[in-house]
Amino acid sequence: MTLLPLDHLAPALVWLDIAGIAVFAVSGALAAARLKQNLVTFAFFAAITSTGGGTVRDLLLGAPVFWMHDPRAITTCLGMAVLVWFTPAWLWRGKALDWFDALGLAAYAVYGAAKALSLGIPALPATVMGVVTACVGGIIRDVLAGEPSILLRPEIYVTAAALAAALFVGLSLLGVPLPLAAGLAATAGFVLRALAIVRGLALPLYRG
Amino acid sequence: MTLLPLDHLAPALVWLDIAGIAVFAVSGALAAARLKQNLVTFAFFAAITSTGGGTVRDLLLGAPVFWMHDPRAITTCLGMAVLVWFTPAWLWRGKALDWFDALGLAAYAVYGAAKALSLGIPALPATVMGVVTACVGGIIRDVLAGEPSILLRPEIYVTAAALAAALFVGLSLLGVPLPLAAGLAATAGFVLRALAIVRGLALPLYRG
Amino acid sequence: MTLLPLDHLAPALVWLDIAGIAVFAVSGALAAARLKQNLVTFAFFAAITSTGGGTVRDLLLGAPVFWMHDPRAITTCLGMAVLVWFTPAWLWRGKALDWFDALGLAAYAVYGAAKALSLGIPALPATVMGVVTACVGGIIRDVLAGEPSILLRPEIYVTAAALAAALFVGLSLLGVPLPLAAGLAATAGFVLRALAIVRGLALPLYRG
Repeated sequence: MTLLPLDHLAPALVWLDIAGIAVFAVSGALAAARLKQNLVTFAFFAAITSTGGGTVRDLLLGAPVFWMHDPRAITTCLGMAVLVWFTPAWLWRGKALDWFDALGLAAYAVYGAAKALSLGIPALPATVMGVVTACVGGIIRDVLAGEPSILLRPEIYVTAAALAAALFVGLSLLGVPLPLAAGLAATAGFVLRALAIVRGLALPLYRG
Repeated sequence: MTLLPLDHLAPALVWLDIAGIAVFAVSGALAAARLKQNLVTFAFFAAITSTGGGTVRDLLLGAPVFWMHDPRAITTCLGMAVLVWFTPAWLWRGKALDWFDALGLAAYAVYGAAKALSLGIPALPATVMGVVTACVGGIIRDVLAGEPSILLRPEIYVTAAALAAALFVGLSLLGVPLPLAAGLAATAGFVLRALAIVRGLALPLYRG
Repeated sequence: MTLLPLDHLAPALVWLDIAGIAVFAVSGALAAARLKQNLVTFAFFAAITSTGGGTVRDLLLGAPVFWMHDPRAITTCLGMAVLVWFTPAWLWRGKALDWFDALGLAAYAVYGAAKALSLGIPALPATVMGVVTACVGGIIRDVLAGEPSILLRPEIYVTAAALAAALFVGLSLLGVPLPLAAGLAATAGFVLRALAIVRGLALPLYRG
């Protein structure tokens, strides 16, 4: 199998990656803020939320864990934890965070699927890697915070990550140029999540 | 140390593996059904329940994660999630699932221990690998679903996996032919779990 | 980067390691005792609490998981589970366990950071590895037991691990001889945790 020439994507991917880390770090720090924790716990939740998905992805892929040899990811987490600690709480209320999180979700789903494809993983597991990258950090955050998991919330979340990852994998395998495939897929995932934020769009639930 | 010639077991093991994946996928999808979730969450729970134990085993062993290079495991999970979604709920009530789960538990405990032995792992950690393979998927399912863990239920569950894994490891090291050792060990684990299902067999609890 | 000559530390580290395993195994078995579980569950909680942090550390480092090729760690866990099961409960009440746990916390934080440095990991991720080694086992124990996580308790815990790990990394990089650096760092982490046990020392909490 020809591996994806992921290097072409590299500059955009680095930006996606840092943006995703920052956004998910804020969402982790805010979980600690809701629990009225101390600054060390802010940092812990910021780190586990923002690196959790990519860490599990890299372990599953057998790739070196991305933040282990490059301190920038953890530095970004610590910086965002301090930022949330020292800024007034009203700044983070409302839906602003949901929008950042939606950007991170779409970006990470594409990024995770692209990394898997670049390592020669088949289409279906590569799509799962996109979902894992985008969602697992938030799932661990919710379990540790004792909050209802994003997995179980009624409106679309995991589905948006799955759409972005599957679309990227599909378009890539069809030969669409990678930056275009990445842009289309991330946009589709973001729009779907946006409809969930704005209109509460949800999939039908099981009625049994 | 002579590695186990696991290839002799291969045809039976492939069947055990697919059966185990299907059974645990159903138990994951049913957890999502109890929570009245959507189809994507069905698929997520099916996948994490049925691949969780083997994934953690492979990570601990330093082996490639089994579903990463072969899409059949994930395809089976998705298929079972769709099956549970579209079939009437009464089909899955009662103890039918407990019996399938008992088969999966016994099969996976032997399979995990055999894989560990075949990689040269000593007897005690190899036994633990059997327990991990059989039980960790269900534990993650319960944590994510917010349900009381199988770990904490009074009747025998983890113990049956430990019996099957330890018996297989012991018989293998005594030179019993592998198919016989696997059959005896899986049967013993299944019977023990069956006694728990039928008669509520339990180990004595701590009284402190 | 020059790797740390960790071999000089080896005899002390082996003792730290066995002591840490035993202490955390007891804390896991006691969680099972509080839940009135059976002996197999005692063993499961003992094993996951005492090996969890080091296991996640080794996976993140890409190193072989420490208990996989050497059965002594699991043997120690099983031994401590049996010990807790058969000894009277009053023996384990009060703060005795807190003190052992504080020793384990400080020792493991240094040990995890030292192992990471010895593998060429940069300072910041190496410090995180110390925190992971010391704290993740207890976090998994609390999630599985359904108890409030040590992460969320008001008094200092993770912070003491972070202090010990960061101090060891800092002193090592400044050229302080490793046994001295390890001793100073572990002592500092232990004293900080001791102040939390004795006086309820806590970091300021977020007020929002």
